[in-house]
Amino acid sequence: MKPTQTTTLMANAIRALAMDAVQKANSGHPGMPMGMAEIAVALWDGHYRHNPANPGWSNRDRFLLSNGHGSMLHYSLLHLSGYDVSMDDLRNFRQLHSKTPGHPEVGITPGVETTTGPLGQGIANSVGMALAEWLLAAEFNRPGFDIVDHHTYAFLGDGCLMEGISHEVASLAGTLGLKKLVWLYDDNGISIDGKVEGWFTDDTPKRFEAYGWNVIRNVDGHDVAALDAAIAKARTSDKPTLICCKTIIGKGSPNLQGGDKVHGAPLGDKEIAAVREHLVWDPIPFDIPADIYTAWDAKARGADLEGQWNALFAGYRAQYPQLAAEFERRMKGELPGNFEQVLAAAVAATVEKKETIATRKASQNAIGALAPVLPEFLGGSADLTGSNLTNWKESVPVRSGVPGNHINYGVREFGMAAIQNGVALHGGFIPFGATFLTFSDYSRNALRMAALMKIRSISVFTHDSIGLGEDGPTHQSIEHVSSLRLIPNLDNWRPCDTVETMVAWGAAVKRHDGPSTLIFSRQNLPFVARDADQLGAIAKGGYVLRDAPNAQVILIATGSEVELALSAADALAGEGIAVRVVSMPSADVFERQDATYKASVLTRGTPRVAIEAGVTDFWYKYVGLDGAVVGIDTFGESAPAGVLFKHFGFTVENVVAKAKSVIAG
Amino acid sequence: MKPTQTTTLMANAIRALAMDAVQKANSGHPGMPMGMAEIAVALWDGHYRHNPANPGWSNRDRFLLSNGHGSMLHYSLLHLSGYDVSMDDLRNFRQLHSKTPGHPEVGITPGVETTTGPLGQGIANSVGMALAEWLLAAEFNRPGFDIVDHHTYAFLGDGCLMEGISHEVASLAGTLGLKKLVWLYDDNGISIDGKVEGWFTDDTPKRFEAYGWNVIRNVDGHDVAALDAAIAKARTSDKPTLICCKTIIGKGSPNLQGGDKVHGAPLGDKEIAAVREHLVWDPIPFDIPADIYTAWDAKARGADLEGQWNALFAGYRAQYPQLAAEFERRMKGELPGNFEQVLAAAVAATVEKKETIATRKASQNAIGALAPVLPEFLGGSADLTGSNLTNWKESVPVRSGVPGNHINYGVREFGMAAIQNGVALHGGFIPFGATFLTFSDYSRNALRMAALMKIRSISVFTHDSIGLGEDGPTHQSIEHVSSLRLIPNLDNWRPCDTVETMVAWGAAVKRHDGPSTLIFSRQNLPFVARDADQLGAIAKGGYVLRDAPNAQVILIATGSEVELALSAADALAGEGIAVRVVSMPSADVFERQDATYKASVLTRGTPRVAIEAGVTDFWYKYVGLDGAVVGIDTFGESAPAGVLFKHFGFTVENVVAKAKSVIAG
Repeated sequence: MKPTQTTTLMANAIRALAMDAVQKANSGHPGMPMGMAEIAVALWDGHYRHNPANPGWSNRDRFLLSNGHGSMLHYSLLHLSGYDVSMDDLRNFRQLHSKTPGHPEVGITPGVETTTGPLGQGIANSVGMALAEWLLAAEFNRPGFDIVDHHTYAFLGDGCLMEGISHEVASLAGTLGLKKLVWLYDDNGISIDGKVEGWFTDDTPKRFEAYGWNVIRNVDGHDVAALDAAIAKARTSDKPTLICCKTIIGKGSPNLQGGDKVHGAPLGDKEIAAVREHLVWDPIPFDIPADIYTAWDAKARGADLEGQWNALFAGYRAQYPQLAAEFERRMKGELPGNFEQVLAAAVAATVEKKETIATRKASQNAIGALAPVLPEFLGGSADLTGSNLTNWKESVPVRSGVPGNHINYGVREFGMAAIQNGVALHGGFIPFGATFLTFSDYSRNALRMAALMKIRSISVFTHDSIGLGEDGPTHQSIEHVSSLRLIPNLDNWRPCDTVETMVAWGAAVKRHDGPSTLIFSRQNLPFVARDADQLGAIAKGGYVLRDAPNAQVILIATGSEVELALSAADALAGEGIAVRVVSMPSADVFERQDATYKASVLTRGTPRVAIEAGVTDFWYKYVGLDGAVVGIDTFGESAPAGVLFKHFGFTVENVVAKAKSVIAG
Repeated sequence: MKPTQTTTLMANAIRALAMDAVQKANSGHPGMPMGMAEIAVALWDGHYRHNPANPGWSNRDRFLLSNGHGSMLHYSLLHLSGYDVSMDDLRNFRQLHSKTPGHPEVGITPGVETTTGPLGQGIANSVGMALAEWLLAAEFNRPGFDIVDHHTYAFLGDGCLMEGISHEVASLAGTLGLKKLVWLYDDNGISIDGKVEGWFTDDTPKRFEAYGWNVIRNVDGHDVAALDAAIAKARTSDKPTLICCKTIIGKGSPNLQGGDKVHGAPLGDKEIAAVREHLVWDPIPFDIPADIYTAWDAKARGADLEGQWNALFAGYRAQYPQLAAEFERRMKGELPGNFEQVLAAAVAATVEKKETIATRKASQNAIGALAPVLPEFLGGSADLTGSNLTNWKESVPVRSGVPGNHINYGVREFGMAAIQNGVALHGGFIPFGATFLTFSDYSRNALRMAALMKIRSISVFTHDSIGLGEDGPTHQSIEHVSSLRLIPNLDNWRPCDTVETMVAWGAAVKRHDGPSTLIFSRQNLPFVARDADQLGAIAKGGYVLRDAPNAQVILIATGSEVELALSAADALAGEGIAVRVVSMPSADVFERQDATYKASVLTRGTPRVAIEAGVTDFWYKYVGLDGAVVGIDTFGESAPAGVLFKHFGFTVENVVAKAKSVIAG
């Protein structure tokens, strides 16, 4: 460890940069960086194994800021330790297209592992990373070759601990015994509304002991030596560790520290001057003395760490060439070379089988067909495995001390989705998790975060409509399919049969730049025959499934309502009305097709009726002011599925009537 | 207490009814009712103070089934104890429009206090009810007249305890010391995926002690006497109490009890026969012996309890006639007689002031204007009080032992919304709570539940777009306004200025049959002048704000984009193009207007452009295939608000260009 004087200067450098950048941006959060500065010194200087020159080194420790509003702490650390984050980048804090956005964003700033800000989700991501590390190590490490062997550290504050997701993920991390996970809690007693004692009086150490965590209590968060010792202890624990660091928010600000006013606003010129005097700090903003840069510089140590690992991996490659190649493939997120072949064969086999089954069952078959070539599959369900059917024949449940590839997440939908995000960010796996579609509400912001982060995380949502039946309106999705479509960069698939299900799974797996949802029925759906062109067009998200020359009306349907559209088309044909049926398993993917293709499917001027067992609003985008939508704009009811479809007007008669009305104009 | 033999029969009656009804429906969950039967006997026969003849008695104890899938437990109890739930109703379990839907639904079944099913929310509702009881008692009780004095009991299972929301609401209940709250935990070690030990190993008693709860450990959940003693102890605690009841799921089913197969499927004829033999029970389904009805009958005791209270209330009325009248008004959910006057005056004053301020500030002014006549206001914020501005000049923060009317919910968005639902269901208050609009994601399912339950709960969502600025995409709403509009029966308001804000608050307060969201800007928005007709039309959700004879284009805008629409209209007028501007603060409310009105606002055949700083999909409903939408279909960016509006095309130039393009057709 460096002498106290040095570590004090290192911590004060963070304080100065944070307050200067927030002041220049006239926006931001100085309180957390100033309060956690010594914790950052203890971790980054003493324990954090990383290489500033290569933020993508697979065996780096992961570091996350779950209290992401303290982004200037991370940016300061990245700058000082030698990442490609310049002082000009810090000066550009919170400006358009800068490397230093308001909250940390993965993909924008080298060294940032995840995007944080929505509280509680960073720590959830960290559980996913620690989980991925453990499972990957179990799969790839060999005696003498611990090629996967790193810790995951997360900073968090009171806000993260108040959020419900903290319970879900800490409970699961404790149960699974993720011993290489270390959380550093900024216990400053302040949240935005003031002293937390008025609304947050948990005995947090006791709570985490109840989860089976190793808890290190009462560490002075401004004593680098004490923090260093605590982290060292955490690293050898056989449980996940929570280090409770007593801190003063905004420490260093003589007039504001310890209060809520220092949390989320610039200190102002006067207080900044007071800080400089108090810390005996250089009066020039954004000016760091050379010796402090030297003290922080992690480039040499980083190169050395990665160099050691590279040597280890070279030995590993020599002994286990196939494993080494596979490990590299997995960490790059590339699919196996034969994936397209396997997928095509699986689609062909599905076409061949012509099965009439629930799409959730078709999904299980799809998983089973792809899993043999996708060892990176890491499935799971939020305590609905037998309903969601996300397990497969060879899947192995993950248990404490027992690695596997299917996670019983427990009744923890939000935690599941955010853990999946962490797994995807870590690399090495394609995570998928499941619940009933209605409970996508619980995980919604994590789905949004996956979309924002452009990561491959797959959500399986079954029991997708009133077709769920007797469980009633609390469990019946009405607004959910449409509502998920509104999240930017989220691809949503609602297939109508086994074949579309197989194609949708393929698309979700192949998608490298964002998450997908796969939305499945509880009830059986009939197999639909297609020609080769139609089969190929499924991947375009929307395509002509049945056609007639000079179609007078286009029926657009998804999922379980495609069957109804086809029956209605038959009935209309019987009356001499020419009908085109468009199946649109993914409106999101269809939207990305070129204008010519889209216009070839939805020909201009032909009246349209959309049919989906959900809210109607979304569909006017495709049917226009003169079209009609067969949907549900109220909540569902508790009754058998068949009764409900009839009750809510999902009948051939109703669709036929709507079609005639739009033709009549 | 009744002799053991009797309580055994009472418990077995529940078991028999639950298994029979599930079998008849061929759907449902027998495991929980069979496992919690003795707990139900101990509570309902020994402690629960209610009157089957009047489920609306204001001082009844509240009873909630947070593990709502065990609905047949509640229905059995209601039937047996004398509510208007007949044996035919039980036979109709899970059928369309029956009194006995799949999960308990408030408003459908007399005696059901809340709608449950989505796990964790029932216990959250119970916290709201206990909170309401405490605050109402503090306000209305007088020496010798505890007219508000009841307990709130909730049943819950492992699923509820795994959900994150359980943490949020238990933590807050502990902090606030809600001593009349009693949770009975069905600790059966089984969830849908099997034995919970694989994914849920919390030391739950320790966890709740960490929240400051009174925990009664290791109660035999099949020993009525032990349960009775535990509940008696809970009732005298000075803290909320968790009673941990060790149970066997599906107890009574000799071959299935204790396993996950008994949770959510009919037992089948064979096992039902085995149960009958095992319990020595009447072989006829839905047949309850008269002496068991007698043992369960709570009508006389209920009439007596309510009679005593009526006498107490008569004395109260005699001494405090105004308070008594006010209490009755509050519990009926009626607004004060002068409310319309006060609202009209507040609107007029707002018009008079012509303030250019952020609508969140306008909202605070609106709260301040209405609060003096609405003592039922119970505001709050999820740790963003100073940003959401939900407090007001005279508001008093609620603290442990210190009643008030503004709750610092802490960083607990989902818990807040579900607690509000409980408060609204209890009666006596109009709850409102706030966070940033983006974090409505966290509370989304509770908003849905409020809409399903048709209750008056108000959500204030501020910082409603990229106008939030530097906090960046994690905090900037893009899809949220549209996405909330998709929830059936939820009224969403996004006002453009102080006047629309005042009207929106009035509408939310006056709405008796559902929840509202009030969506506000961070940034200042200019005051807009209106004539009397326009002022009156705001309440219709959408109206013509500026008009021109023979308008060639209609610009539809909401919130902060109304200003832009007006500026664009000016620019277009300058070029000789006649423009109508429609302000649509609530598309939900506008949709409820008659066709004539709607057509008068959005005249058929006039090209349209919608402008909203959010996703575009929703607006095609109003602009059609030939219209245009100025919106954002990607995530936001981190930068000052002004920079972002320009960056994303919210400029007069862009709107003018779009308007010209739709006119050109």
